[in-house]
Amino acid sequence: MPELRKDPVVGRWVIVSTARGKRPSDFLPSPVDDAGPQKCPFCYGHEHMTPPEITAYRPDGSRPNTPGWKVRTVPNKYPALGIDDILTKRGVGIYDMMTGFGAHEVIIETPDHYRGIKDLTLEELSDVLRMCQGRIQDLHRDIRFRYILVFRNEGPLAGASLSHPHTQLVATPITPKRVKEELMGAESYFKQRERCIFCDIIHEEREEGRRIVFENDHFISFCPFASRFPFEIWLLPKRHELDFHASHDNLRDMAQALKVTMQKLAIALNNPQYNYIIHSAPNLFPRRGYWQTIQDDYHWHIEIMPRLTKVAGFEWGTGFYINPTPPEDAAKYLQEVTVAIA
Amino acid sequence: MPELRKDPVVGRWVIVSTARGKRPSDFLPSPVDDAGPQKCPFCYGHEHMTPPEITAYRPDGSRPNTPGWKVRTVPNKYPALGIDDILTKRGVGIYDMMTGFGAHEVIIETPDHYRGIKDLTLEELSDVLRMCQGRIQDLHRDIRFRYILVFRNEGPLAGASLSHPHTQLVATPITPKRVKEELMGAESYFKQRERCIFCDIIHEEREEGRRIVFENDHFISFCPFASRFPFEIWLLPKRHELDFHASHDNLRDMAQALKVTMQKLAIALNNPQYNYIIHSAPNLFPRRGYWQTIQDDYHWHIEIMPRLTKVAGFEWGTGFYINPTPPEDAAKYLQEVTVAIA
Repeated sequence: MPELRKDPVVGRWVIVSTARGKRPSDFLPSPVDDAGPQKCPFCYGHEHMTPPEITAYRPDGSRPNTPGWKVRTVPNKYPALGIDDILTKRGVGIYDMMTGFGAHEVIIETPDHYRGIKDLTLEELSDVLRMCQGRIQDLHRDIRFRYILVFRNEGPLAGASLSHPHTQLVATPITPKRVKEELMGAESYFKQRERCIFCDIIHEEREEGRRIVFENDHFISFCPFASRFPFEIWLLPKRHELDFHASHDNLRDMAQALKVTMQKLAIALNNPQYNYIIHSAPNLFPRRGYWQTIQDDYHWHIEIMPRLTKVAGFEWGTGFYINPTPPEDAAKYLQEVTVAIA
Repeated sequence: MPELRKDPVVGRWVIVSTARGKRPSDFLPSPVDDAGPQKCPFCYGHEHMTPPEITAYRPDGSRPNTPGWKVRTVPNKYPALGIDDILTKRGVGIYDMMTGFGAHEVIIETPDHYRGIKDLTLEELSDVLRMCQGRIQDLHRDIRFRYILVFRNEGPLAGASLSHPHTQLVATPITPKRVKEELMGAESYFKQRERCIFCDIIHEEREEGRRIVFENDHFISFCPFASRFPFEIWLLPKRHELDFHASHDNLRDMAQALKVTMQKLAIALNNPQYNYIIHSAPNLFPRRGYWQTIQDDYHWHIEIMPRLTKVAGFEWGTGFYINPTPPEDAAKYLQEVTVAIA
């Protein structure tokens, strides 16, 4: 059973995945999967190779765990956290731990092994986003989950172990440290100025203009002023919105902004490996009181990070980053890439 | 000139290195150097290929920038921060920035292209550590430097661009976020208990025993309870000490603990790539008042992180880590490796 262990100095939680229990020989370099569609557990006809599906969009009315689906969600076969565990917290000597209770799901974005996010039609991509929203909504009903993280790893350098297009979701029993920092930063800004910091950033970026990558009626993407990585991009709803999963009204605009942004990135950098992460509010309950205030000060967004540079000792030691490409230059390259806007 | 830019939400500083100004084509995968000693700027006879040396140990009395040295410190040819810049802070729209004032040095550990840290004699390794201490002491005299980070990148996955054994040093005009978190965690623990948290951790680890990697009279290394990475190791002086650079009395024990620990790691994991980082106190001045209190609550140490797993979207998004090897298992493998203790 995985364990959550807390670093006593900085309070960082670590998932120690005892089930995997890797030995020294397991760390020898191994090639990435791609055996291709024939052996891929996410392709049509191989539905039995994944744990039974949680849900799927099946326009043809086909039975669960058979072909015919458009988007399919399954439990991760090698979960980082286990949903069957009971959440218990205890001390171990001077340290703190809890059982690794949580959920780890995989959203298979398309039956097509070779079509990435940027290749999907706006309808298909809207379906993927809607599926992510639905899964968050469903998991939010379990109040033991404090946070639902949705993210995408593309390519082996970005941590992907399968190449078939997929998004991942992890539900955790604690609000992660980095999320807390963001919530606290936004709250503190709001207290001083009674304005959402992300709304202010959007305003500033639209005034400045140089860092913008793409904009439509409801969404904007830009290279942030303090980009950690070359070609880092943030994508936000222009209207103030707390939760990604409640953003239903302009799903097609969301899909378009994401697709165009990813297309530009793919063309400018020759299909780079990347991670993107949906930053959304934690799982809140009116009884916690906090729910009232966070409505105004937090603003969901997606952070896209191409994996072009290596994170080395300096970054690990300090928590700050060396970015060799100014965001103004990165945005310029991306602006110069023209893509057909569906 | 590099710029330091501050993320307005979480307060993270980023070094935007405009001088490097990398374009999309610069990110195409490139092989690591190793052209071997013939073209290596850190080998004997190639002293003119680096900027002029800052200092060197030259037992043979040879002239600066000629062969004969044992350990040699030079400015980084491609510095992340520049020592010639004047430190100025200003606002840019709603954002904050400052000029990238700082220092970036390279400590060439040995003239031998092929002898890593673990292959040096105790005398040679003591010299390397003494050189690091001397450089910190020297840079501490400039009160514009708030923090001096000493770290080592081994292998291309760990961010090394040259294979000749070397350590790096970066002096920054701000105390980095991750260092602050550690200082604050230690301070808060001390306030509650009037004990150093690191001293308590050492006591706990010696009681428990299972996570210890190596121990001599004055130093101990172990796999920490909440290890972020498989085979992560911390190395600490057993006696309470604030500053790495002031730790002179038992340098041979320090070198022995580091050498044996790195040898065990090299044998167990077949020469893994890794980063290690010296965590020491910031550059403090009695007039700041803080100096009195930190003496008791902070404790310098080295964090060693083999690069065996990929950091993916989940880790970036949450700031917590999935570690597939429990530290108890990692320590057991390392305990089973026997090395000759000089």
